[in-house]
Amino acid sequence: WREGAAKKEIIDFVSRVCREDSADFVPVPERIAVFDNDGTLWSEKPFYFQGLFVFERLNRLLDQHPEWKKDQPFRAAIEKDLKTLDGLAPKALLELAIATHGGMTSEEFDAIAEEWLDRARHPQTGRPFTEMVFQPMLELLAYLRDNRFKTFIVSGGGIEFVRTFSERVYGIPPEQVVGSSVVTRYEVIDGKPTLSRSSEMNFFDDNDGKPVGIQQHIGRRPIAAFGNSDGDLPMMEWVMAGEGARLSVIVHHDDAEREFAYDRNSVSGRLNRGLDESSERGITVVSMKNDWERVYPE
Amino acid sequence: WREGAAKKEIIDFVSRVCREDSADFVPVPERIAVFDNDGTLWSEKPFYFQGLFVFERLNRLLDQHPEWKKDQPFRAAIEKDLKTLDGLAPKALLELAIATHGGMTSEEFDAIAEEWLDRARHPQTGRPFTEMVFQPMLELLAYLRDNRFKTFIVSGGGIEFVRTFSERVYGIPPEQVVGSSVVTRYEVIDGKPTLSRSSEMNFFDDNDGKPVGIQQHIGRRPIAAFGNSDGDLPMMEWVMAGEGARLSVIVHHDDAEREFAYDRNSVSGRLNRGLDESSERGITVVSMKNDWERVYPE
Repeated sequence: WREGAAKKEIIDFVSRVCREDSADFVPVPERIAVFDNDGTLWSEKPFYFQGLFVFERLNRLLDQHPEWKKDQPFRAAIEKDLKTLDGLAPKALLELAIATHGGMTSEEFDAIAEEWLDRARHPQTGRPFTEMVFQPMLELLAYLRDNRFKTFIVSGGGIEFVRTFSERVYGIPPEQVVGSSVVTRYEVIDGKPTLSRSSEMNFFDDNDGKPVGIQQHIGRRPIAAFGNSDGDLPMMEWVMAGEGARLSVIVHHDDAEREFAYDRNSVSGRLNRGLDESSERGITVVSMKNDWERVYPE
Repeated sequence: WREGAAKKEIIDFVSRVCREDSADFVPVPERIAVFDNDGTLWSEKPFYFQGLFVFERLNRLLDQHPEWKKDQPFRAAIEKDLKTLDGLAPKALLELAIATHGGMTSEEFDAIAEEWLDRARHPQTGRPFTEMVFQPMLELLAYLRDNRFKTFIVSGGGIEFVRTFSERVYGIPPEQVVGSSVVTRYEVIDGKPTLSRSSEMNFFDDNDGKPVGIQQHIGRRPIAAFGNSDGDLPMMEWVMAGEGARLSVIVHHDDAEREFAYDRNSVSGRLNRGLDESSERGITVVSMKNDWERVYPE
């Protein structure tokens, strides 16, 4: 982090809630901080990384589903037609994810996701996706935990996908990950207890879903929220409406040179209302270009 | 806890998974222990305590719902006809809970539940319900946490109901409570961000629901499970099927003098398969009468 207003606001907030003699002191159990994942903790261009995983799965399963070659959104995904995909509603993307990530056990899904994360490389940087996490955000997570915050991920991405790497990469254990999910069933198959992932949506953890997911999993209102898109605004609104000191931070992708530059006109990761309303809502906007000394880890 | 086989099995298990030189050593993040609530951490007779709360709510809301006087299961609940209620399927009881616990905000629900827990007294003991928790289980929770286990509640009861007292009474924070839930919606009402509880079922955390709830909330398989009824068997089965050292414990209610005695013929808290299969499944059965020196705290 470079010295500047954003860094100062974060440090001021943490000092205020952690100092016992402060009017804004918050007891340790209430120090809950929530982080969006795509675009907040790691990059999300040219497309959500889990989306790139879905596209590969679609191509691998194509022999069993020749109809996908004709129907949208499948056709666009198979052809990696990012422009068409970028214009699709999140629900259409979910349809793709569910079609390829259901119909197997939780253990099978974990194995497939881990294999992909190990092997796949980003089309532009050539890096493994788990190395396209933001160094300043890793430092922020560690700083908050040093100050006895409990850090959670609240992602529109699949809960089981994010859990495959959250502990290793972010130091966030699976029980502190909230995300979208498919309906899962418990069955004993050939004498073996099994959790089977269906192809039916269970919960969509984006927009208004984020405060709902927070209530379901955490059961109390966080005091700090970190995001990068308009889909994170309901979560920030919920956080800011609580009593006492609050912090909301938006990561603004304005660094085409070191990462990507997009905001108002991007469909995935759109940041439009967030820019207009940040000041009246008391949200701190971080410029990747100006506020970060480094983007990715060495 | 009195000296005996049950206490010894618990201590042996904990020593084996915590000693670094042990073949069964389990790293701290994997030390997850799950506890049923009704009948495992506190009593559940003459009826599930949340049920008694529901009956009172039904009576208070009766003026707005005169039809409840005629229709089952409402009539039995209003008349506190425990015999009829005990014979009803859990789904019918859920219908009662949903009818009285939905249609309000999460904050309103918390306030009503807390007020009831403060005021209501058990019909036989005259104690507040939160003082009808089991002293040996409080000591077990503390013992596991001292050994760096993370303790979770996995209850068929309502997640928000249990959360109103879990931290204060058991030392288990809301984010470590898994339970049944209604569909909740995020809305901004008169400019105020609000979580509204609907009267629609979201998740039923009993029987096969327990391993599913564990996967959803915790995202990894616990190594120890504690319960008291057949509804806890799928959770124990899921725990025991993992690799390495495992512990499952059933609390057997066989102490009519100090608590209650029931098992095979009780509808609520039925323990039938659990008694027959405990030995082949490697489940430790705790006799409240013989293994516990004291039942409730002073």
